[in-house]
Amino acid sequence: MSYQVPRGTKDILPVETEKWQSIERLIQETCSLYQYKEIRTPMFEHTELFLRSVGDTTDIVQKEMYTFTDRGDRSLTLRPEGTAAVVRAYVEHKMFGMPDQPVKLYYMGPMFRYERQQAGRYRQFSQFGVEAIGSADPAIDAEVISLAMDICKKAGLTSLKLVINSLGDAESRASHKESLVEHFKPSIGEFCQDCQNRLEKNPLRILDCKVDRNHPLMNTAPALSDYLNEESKQYFDKVKEYLTVMGLKFEVDVNLVRGLDYYTHTAFEIMSTAEGFGAITTLCGGGRYNGLVENIGGPTAPGIGFGMGVDRILLAQEAEGVPLPKLSTLNVYVVALGEEAKKKAVEVVRNFRLNGISADLDYLDRKMKAQMKSADRLSAENVLIIGEEELNEGCAVLKNMTDGTQQKVLFDEILSFLKRN
Amino acid sequence: MSYQVPRGTKDILPVETEKWQSIERLIQETCSLYQYKEIRTPMFEHTELFLRSVGDTTDIVQKEMYTFTDRGDRSLTLRPEGTAAVVRAYVEHKMFGMPDQPVKLYYMGPMFRYERQQAGRYRQFSQFGVEAIGSADPAIDAEVISLAMDICKKAGLTSLKLVINSLGDAESRASHKESLVEHFKPSIGEFCQDCQNRLEKNPLRILDCKVDRNHPLMNTAPALSDYLNEESKQYFDKVKEYLTVMGLKFEVDVNLVRGLDYYTHTAFEIMSTAEGFGAITTLCGGGRYNGLVENIGGPTAPGIGFGMGVDRILLAQEAEGVPLPKLSTLNVYVVALGEEAKKKAVEVVRNFRLNGISADLDYLDRKMKAQMKSADRLSAENVLIIGEEELNEGCAVLKNMTDGTQQKVLFDEILSFLKRN
Repeated sequence: MSYQVPRGTKDILPVETEKWQSIERLIQETCSLYQYKEIRTPMFEHTELFLRSVGDTTDIVQKEMYTFTDRGDRSLTLRPEGTAAVVRAYVEHKMFGMPDQPVKLYYMGPMFRYERQQAGRYRQFSQFGVEAIGSADPAIDAEVISLAMDICKKAGLTSLKLVINSLGDAESRASHKESLVEHFKPSIGEFCQDCQNRLEKNPLRILDCKVDRNHPLMNTAPALSDYLNEESKQYFDKVKEYLTVMGLKFEVDVNLVRGLDYYTHTAFEIMSTAEGFGAITTLCGGGRYNGLVENIGGPTAPGIGFGMGVDRILLAQEAEGVPLPKLSTLNVYVVALGEEAKKKAVEVVRNFRLNGISADLDYLDRKMKAQMKSADRLSAENVLIIGEEELNEGCAVLKNMTDGTQQKVLFDEILSFLKRN
Repeated sequence: MSYQVPRGTKDILPVETEKWQSIERLIQETCSLYQYKEIRTPMFEHTELFLRSVGDTTDIVQKEMYTFTDRGDRSLTLRPEGTAAVVRAYVEHKMFGMPDQPVKLYYMGPMFRYERQQAGRYRQFSQFGVEAIGSADPAIDAEVISLAMDICKKAGLTSLKLVINSLGDAESRASHKESLVEHFKPSIGEFCQDCQNRLEKNPLRILDCKVDRNHPLMNTAPALSDYLNEESKQYFDKVKEYLTVMGLKFEVDVNLVRGLDYYTHTAFEIMSTAEGFGAITTLCGGGRYNGLVENIGGPTAPGIGFGMGVDRILLAQEAEGVPLPKLSTLNVYVVALGEEAKKKAVEVVRNFRLNGISADLDYLDRKMKAQMKSADRLSAENVLIIGEEELNEGCAVLKNMTDGTQQKVLFDEILSFLKRN
């Protein structure tokens, strides 16, 4: 009997994990420059939270959630996205009462969606996201977008496209919704069952339907952009103005409608335009959600945020041939010959490590030749050879693996010798 | 309707998260000195893996697992500990075939156990652990223990106790088991149902029973230490010798029996002896598992590892009054007065951030006084004030919040001015 990683998930193995660490450090540092602070919420939430926030007509809720009942008979769901939990925490910990609004938060970690298996899509994937809750200033929309762009750029990506749109305020969306219902209602019988359910609840999602995308009524449907009221237009103009001030290029795409129900006003996506990156080009998507906090039981508090696929950033780096981060190095490999030498090696290696020098030794009682081969494979910068003879003299042979030189060094002086060179 | 974090779990909020980041960085750096590489396995595994490795007579498997069925009808379980998955990955990715053994891995992240609620125990908790697989050298046991101790010490902890024991090899354990069965069998009817089940499967666990701990047969039970064969004794002596060479103090406790089924030879725990730390004092526990790799379908490959509770390290830091890590700082808060100044502020702030200077500004259109208060609360090192008048002169007022001095600076020169000071 042997075991495999669950279908649709994967292990991230050494070397690969160093790339992850590097991206995560970049994210931490950039968020700190922007004064976003990390929050960590549990891997699962009450299922009801997602029904309420993500929206019960979305694919995520209807088809993709990992939902289970715990031993206390609660319905829990592995988080399929990050915003709902952060907003829940904002309300639960009464962050709306903190003197400095907006509260600027970021999160990073695994998310779970039971999706059909396809290249580059996993059922457990890693998302980084930010949420700025408590301000309806178009300047914060621009800040959030610029943070996302900065991270993509700092990750070494250059083939990037920023696309923005406005979904309007509640009033604009309501009048657009009304006209959509009018448009589709007479012929709704010709549409799939999903679309028929969406008609009254969320007709905007009919436009995303993959089954009915060729129906003639799709092309003639009223466009949201024609229903934006004056306030919504002004808000959008301001966002664009700030982005320009920041020197960020963008395209407006009136068809950009994010898949989640809670968006209002600004919506945006960052896409990779790198050749060979694959069919799914979105690296990051986000937008404003002015009704969400209230919707899950909090006060009126407008918010904006985004989610970025960390796996996807790594894939884009690969597609663009971004050089790997500097991998961790091995400063010294200690070769020991004989039992007494081994004991000395254990002591020396520990002393190296306590002094910030990375070190390793053989744990298989192998001969000198095999130990030297290991040192080579592990790209050790130096090899320290401890033999019986040298041991009696209180010294060892230090070989520099870059230039091949070697010399005898007293044990007491090895540390300072290594630090000097 | 409002929502709360699921029972037994918690949010980790800003400021607290900076402590976590600091510990995690310390762990990454120390593992790198020791040449352990990070591996990331999924949050869940096939349930069968845990039954097989953790052992089906353990409390974890019997009472504490989050087990659910996915939409493809697979039984999955949120990982209750880290070793099983790492060993599964070692086998699945054929790491036993890599030229350099042992393979030295570490992991860090959430684990899940449905435990009775009590202080300091959460159903989602964070564990850091290492596994060194592919060597039966007592020196690697000592290395693993010293890595654990180093991390506790680097985290600032001083009240630490290292306890070790030997559980012996398979032969020693088998003869001990036999004598345990003989010892308890005649009176097993006086014991609880759990113990009756344990008798044939794993009688060693009877000794851990909380229900029957006062039964007279408990005190007279044969001790494992009396059943160690010569090889096991020699192995244990070597481990102690290496620990001594490394300068690590330890106590031998023959009653130390780890709760998981797969241990052989070395078992160890690191405890906090800090006053007021609470009833559960274990920070870290681990040991050798020579049969585990084979048990889950791999070749014979001896291993050793440990798990350390990151939450518990933070609690111990608190109990010992370890000073907080340096929190992220705000270099400049930009105060803007009027619409044009705001636009300039957005530009200036972005420029700061692009140049590695952390910066923030007001997103609530507040008056100058309120903005200055924010700068104070956020402990800004500097405040840059942009008013209409200064804007026309192409400059702003920079106030040093440490010494209270202020001066006009041209926009073009602010960056170099700040970097100079």
